[in-house]
Amino acid sequence: MTTTKIFEEMASSPAPWLSGEGPDSFAVLSSRIRLARNISEFPFPPAADMEIRQRIMEFVSPAFDKASTLGGGGFYPSDTMDGLSQKFLMERHLISPEFMKGGAGRGIYIGDQEKVSIMLNEEDHIRLQVISSGMSLFDCWEIANKVDDELSGLVEFDFDNRYGYLTSCPTNVGTGLRASILIHLPGLVLTREIDNVLNRISKVGLVVRGFYGEGTDVLGNLFQISNQTTLGRTEEEIIDSLTKVSAQIIEYEKDAQERLMREAPEMIEDKVWRSYGILTNARVLTSHEVMNYLSAIRFGLSLGLIDKSSYKEINELLVITQPAHIQKYYSREMDNTERDMVRADLVRERFNDSGDN
Amino acid sequence: MTTTKIFEEMASSPAPWLSGEGPDSFAVLSSRIRLARNISEFPFPPAADMEIRQRIMEFVSPAFDKASTLGGGGFYPSDTMDGLSQKFLMERHLISPEFMKGGAGRGIYIGDQEKVSIMLNEEDHIRLQVISSGMSLFDCWEIANKVDDELSGLVEFDFDNRYGYLTSCPTNVGTGLRASILIHLPGLVLTREIDNVLNRISKVGLVVRGFYGEGTDVLGNLFQISNQTTLGRTEEEIIDSLTKVSAQIIEYEKDAQERLMREAPEMIEDKVWRSYGILTNARVLTSHEVMNYLSAIRFGLSLGLIDKSSYKEINELLVITQPAHIQKYYSREMDNTERDMVRADLVRERFNDSGDN
Repeated sequence: MTTTKIFEEMASSPAPWLSGEGPDSFAVLSSRIRLARNISEFPFPPAADMEIRQRIMEFVSPAFDKASTLGGGGFYPSDTMDGLSQKFLMERHLISPEFMKGGAGRGIYIGDQEKVSIMLNEEDHIRLQVISSGMSLFDCWEIANKVDDELSGLVEFDFDNRYGYLTSCPTNVGTGLRASILIHLPGLVLTREIDNVLNRISKVGLVVRGFYGEGTDVLGNLFQISNQTTLGRTEEEIIDSLTKVSAQIIEYEKDAQERLMREAPEMIEDKVWRSYGILTNARVLTSHEVMNYLSAIRFGLSLGLIDKSSYKEINELLVITQPAHIQKYYSREMDNTERDMVRADLVRERFNDSGDN
Repeated sequence: MTTTKIFEEMASSPAPWLSGEGPDSFAVLSSRIRLARNISEFPFPPAADMEIRQRIMEFVSPAFDKASTLGGGGFYPSDTMDGLSQKFLMERHLISPEFMKGGAGRGIYIGDQEKVSIMLNEEDHIRLQVISSGMSLFDCWEIANKVDDELSGLVEFDFDNRYGYLTSCPTNVGTGLRASILIHLPGLVLTREIDNVLNRISKVGLVVRGFYGEGTDVLGNLFQISNQTTLGRTEEEIIDSLTKVSAQIIEYEKDAQERLMREAPEMIEDKVWRSYGILTNARVLTSHEVMNYLSAIRFGLSLGLIDKSSYKEINELLVITQPAHIQKYYSREMDNTERDMVRADLVRERFNDSGDN
């Protein structure tokens, strides 16, 4: 099967991390652990030419077959993927915008159910990612840790006894760990408390980004929150800190939601149902619009105001209505106008199929 | 039964002129003939004090019982109506804003099915109105003419052999006739040709007003078009002229609709269905919003893009969702906020009842 075909099949079955399950899944869509690793004998990817990048891939990728903690996956060099396929993987949170920009000489291992994935030659030689539904950072860490242990027996990582893992960018030196959650905060956005909350977050060494990571817009009231520093603390401390701050943010969100329901219940209910009305009837929908209306319905679900959908359905639609997904799903390239029409069809179909679930 | 009770009953059964029947009813909601008449021995209402206005009513109103061309109606002096009742009658196109402002010493006869109505002491002593569904000015004129003939035998009208009927405002001297149609022109508004068309209309001596007549806003793409002059032409000539111009406007509207469907069918379809989605799901709706969304659905009906409603339903909703109607229908006064919520409930109920008709 060609890479293109494989991705088209993936497009019709959303990733398990969108299942809407796990702790606090009303707010937290997913948890993610990423480890940055490098191989001693090669220069970091930004300083490596094409030939060296190829040698790095040849050196590392055989380990994916050997590792017993991986399995059922496939490795895709970037030169087997067209631009649309790469956009598709980015929408699926499997590769980064950075990886996309890099061009040839890169590759991605995608494990069974997309739970574990490994980018080669992004900013570092190895970027191991584990992603799962709900507030589940320690679960992700447990898996990442096992894969990391096994890989480190197969290829030797660049490790300094004083600093820890050495990385291309100094912000990743140390544990090389980034823990992040994707969280939905419609209540804090609507009460305009979000800026205050985000300010406080940045003061405790956390970073906030949009749905698609660094440099992307905040859409659909979805925020990625992750640790800034990777040095001077253990992996468990970093994850524990993010988990605690997240619990606090979730409390703020709950408070905001309760306050809104006390002060303007009809306004909230109206917003939720109008969004549902538009998504189930529109004939043309941009992906930004879809994200914002899905966000409102998700908000309605968490408040018990609507019973026409589920977290799973909303989470999946957030991803499968993205431009490259639409095109992969229908197996053809489309311009903006056509995409917006096909997207509206897809959204109506999904809502009609789900009925009153 | 008190006046208030009678009006509350009226509120639950929309007027027959909203039936969506008759020629060109896809565009023309209703046709209306109004005759202005005055009684020789009394000053015009603007110059009459309270006592004289009372005497005028006592002099004229007994004729309503005697006239065989009238029947099954009732006469309501303005002092038996509270402000809400008067607003209600205005929304129903039975009294004018002018009548409302006038206060006590006025009255309205409302005939069977609201087809014929007669205001006393608005700007003129007598304002006879006949209204019916679709493009049906000559039908209205026939009825108005008969009632006028009979009334003129019961009370003597101020008539000058040279000028015709004498009226309070010189623009009504002559026939005292105003013919008007209420027309829906979404295509011309959307293609922005409406200003050109309205300019041409004014050059042939016609006047364009909003949904509720003189000095009211154009809402929901609904326009009232009527003759400006009443002097120097026969009633038939005036009506014939308006009928011909209307036929021309209807052609322009059809052209605009066809062009839109050729050039941007998905945009139109989207607009229609979103409006339907919002009306069938919103929890809070202002009357302006309702008019605009109903207008879009009506547009969709005329283009065959939607089968979820009917001209009758849309026409009726345009009137029964107005502020005073909402309050009459639920038999209580409400503030804006409550009205907007109740209005949304009413609209959802009506659409759900009608189903796929």
